[in-house]
Amino acid sequence: MEWIENGDLSFLKKRKVEAKEAAQQSVREIIARVRDEGDKALKDYTKQFDGVELGELRVPNEAIAAAYRHVPEKVIQAIRQAAENIRAFHEKQKPSSWTETVEHGVVLGQKVTPLDSVGVYVPGGTASYPSSVLMGAVPALVAGVGRVVLISPPQKNGLIAYGVLVAAHEIGIKEIYQAGGAQAIAALAYGTETIRPVDKIVGPGNLYVMLAKKQVFGDVAIDSLAGPSEIAVLADETAHPEWVAADLLSQAEHDKMSMPVLVTTSRSLAEKVDQEVERQLPALPRHEIAGPSIETVGKIVLAANLKDAAEIVNQIAPEHLELAIADPESVLPLIRHAGAIFLGMYSSEPVGDYFAGPNHIIPTNGSARYASPLGVESFVKRSSLIRYTDEALEANGSAIADFARFEGLEGHAQAVEKRMKGATVHE
Amino acid sequence: MEWIENGDLSFLKKRKVEAKEAAQQSVREIIARVRDEGDKALKDYTKQFDGVELGELRVPNEAIAAAYRHVPEKVIQAIRQAAENIRAFHEKQKPSSWTETVEHGVVLGQKVTPLDSVGVYVPGGTASYPSSVLMGAVPALVAGVGRVVLISPPQKNGLIAYGVLVAAHEIGIKEIYQAGGAQAIAALAYGTETIRPVDKIVGPGNLYVMLAKKQVFGDVAIDSLAGPSEIAVLADETAHPEWVAADLLSQAEHDKMSMPVLVTTSRSLAEKVDQEVERQLPALPRHEIAGPSIETVGKIVLAANLKDAAEIVNQIAPEHLELAIADPESVLPLIRHAGAIFLGMYSSEPVGDYFAGPNHIIPTNGSARYASPLGVESFVKRSSLIRYTDEALEANGSAIADFARFEGLEGHAQAVEKRMKGATVHE
Repeated sequence: MEWIENGDLSFLKKRKVEAKEAAQQSVREIIARVRDEGDKALKDYTKQFDGVELGELRVPNEAIAAAYRHVPEKVIQAIRQAAENIRAFHEKQKPSSWTETVEHGVVLGQKVTPLDSVGVYVPGGTASYPSSVLMGAVPALVAGVGRVVLISPPQKNGLIAYGVLVAAHEIGIKEIYQAGGAQAIAALAYGTETIRPVDKIVGPGNLYVMLAKKQVFGDVAIDSLAGPSEIAVLADETAHPEWVAADLLSQAEHDKMSMPVLVTTSRSLAEKVDQEVERQLPALPRHEIAGPSIETVGKIVLAANLKDAAEIVNQIAPEHLELAIADPESVLPLIRHAGAIFLGMYSSEPVGDYFAGPNHIIPTNGSARYASPLGVESFVKRSSLIRYTDEALEANGSAIADFARFEGLEGHAQAVEKRMKGATVHE
Repeated sequence: MEWIENGDLSFLKKRKVEAKEAAQQSVREIIARVRDEGDKALKDYTKQFDGVELGELRVPNEAIAAAYRHVPEKVIQAIRQAAENIRAFHEKQKPSSWTETVEHGVVLGQKVTPLDSVGVYVPGGTASYPSSVLMGAVPALVAGVGRVVLISPPQKNGLIAYGVLVAAHEIGIKEIYQAGGAQAIAALAYGTETIRPVDKIVGPGNLYVMLAKKQVFGDVAIDSLAGPSEIAVLADETAHPEWVAADLLSQAEHDKMSMPVLVTTSRSLAEKVDQEVERQLPALPRHEIAGPSIETVGKIVLAANLKDAAEIVNQIAPEHLELAIADPESVLPLIRHAGAIFLGMYSSEPVGDYFAGPNHIIPTNGSARYASPLGVESFVKRSSLIRYTDEALEANGSAIADFARFEGLEGHAQAVEKRMKGATVHE
């Protein structure tokens, strides 16, 4: 891994890769064609990009049940326990409606309502991600979303991965479509003959999925624009080099562009972790992915003390942060920007990917500066409530009218004044 | 106003106007040039689009103090009271950090952190909107955002409107820049020599501002893509036609494209409101704006009963909704989609625009289906917290590793397993 000893974090600027205009243009064309031709376009693109000739877009219920025969029982049990943990954590996030009565009997408040419909995109291709089903859909279900739809590209055998179907069934999702890429996003946003449109699209995907989400944003809601996975491990001399190395590698194996960073106050630890990474890497089945991530993206950043180390972390604003230090709680208040924070030596990042309960769909590319992990809040909205009274209008109507007139909005002023001076509801 | 008696709501499809490719392209060029040339580009565009030759981009503190001489004392008082009400309401929205201890001593939770920096865009041009300063900036200040920046185009006299400067001063904002349009959004997103970039850009603006916000989205956060203002008044026979008409007109005077809709169960009320709108319209100073809105966009929709009326409102998903009915609380549970809901005869919509406390930056164009008014939540983010224990890893590590291996991520499985079987922190 590359060492940085002079505090130069300019490598962070390379994180944001601008999409080529050609990619933008093909995504525009895919979206336009799906809007025009609906199901036919979806099937044509699935043949072209996934090499699969689809009969039906919707996965029949029998196929979901049949998927259970292909998933080991211990994995089904793990999916079930993970779903329960994820549900329990997200239940804690549910916001409540409230009202309060203020001066002159005025009632103010906000009403929280779940979205009507949500589409969860689950990436496919070479791997199968049942965990993404749980992380995308469970918060929507906890929020009370009435219609939660899944969409995922078919594998070469012409079916969505078994684990994805099992995870969907475990949490009660029945509306599942086989399609991927920009065409799947367009179908969710604008609908086809088979797929009714949704109000919000969530879930990670490749560059085309991300570009499509950005283009449909505004016509529907989206969660965020996901980039390659990231981890920063802030470690002191008490950290366990073998474990830290394994955690860095667990991010590296996601993608050649994934960013594993060790930030440490201990040169001795840094050296040991560096050696451990080299030692563990070749044995990993995905070493051809993890290798380039470690060698071309991965960094070891030396910090003078924990305070400086925390500020380096804030500048990285990593998706995942491990505080592999003797007293993680003492550094936590210094951390402003990190999507998910793992405290202490036993909080290995994969614990959060699968099992602990908090969401694994987390802001990347430094967007933890301003964004949050997916959560129940992503699937509800607030409506403001205002109940004004005649008494409050008598007391404040003139101020409101003065303000409106100053902004040049006479109609606003008159709407308020018409209700003043003892006017009654019935003429 | 056009009457709709057959339940045909196809007029809603006309709300979303696709921006012309030419406009998109000029916004791309403006953003690129501001990124390349910084302050110089900003000044050039300000000369070109606003007809103003700027000396400094930043408004000097003396200009802010001097603005007070041009704003009537009663308006200053109204601004002050409004700011207090807005602050009080938004204080109620502040989310809290929390942790909980679950099985095996595992601690889970979330940490709420304000954004570091926010830019509030305040539209300018022919009018002056101090209310938008308050609505954009106060929630950010309540959230605890360290740096809140204002940007607004200069008027023909070469200065930002006095009311905007007074409102900014009242709430303690000192960093104010003179620029508007797409170039202002680009400057906030990417920075110039004078303007440091921000993490999030909020506030309404014209089509160019909206297109620029969509283009920079992903590099920074934005609030929403604002369209023309909307009001739906759901009224029964007990509503006051003169007041309902005035409220419809108050939205109509914003913009020729604003959408005022009356949804009513009473044909007699509909007729009276229609007449009242015609009677009041010519006397409004902005009748040349309100007229086209009423005539080409405005609608009167007849509903068979309050339940149907509520469903019509949900399909409109209006920015503002008035429940001008005898028992508004009885209909409120049926309303799923509306940005701000005004209950009862005295809750005129302008009360919310200026004074009551809830935000007036509210989702438009039907996006109340999935989005919320601007609020404190818009200016904070959550970080998940996970503190796992050795005991929890012994209990759950195998399930986590099984799950990871099933997804083909051996490195994830090993990171967990290395910590099991009595391994200690220090080797």
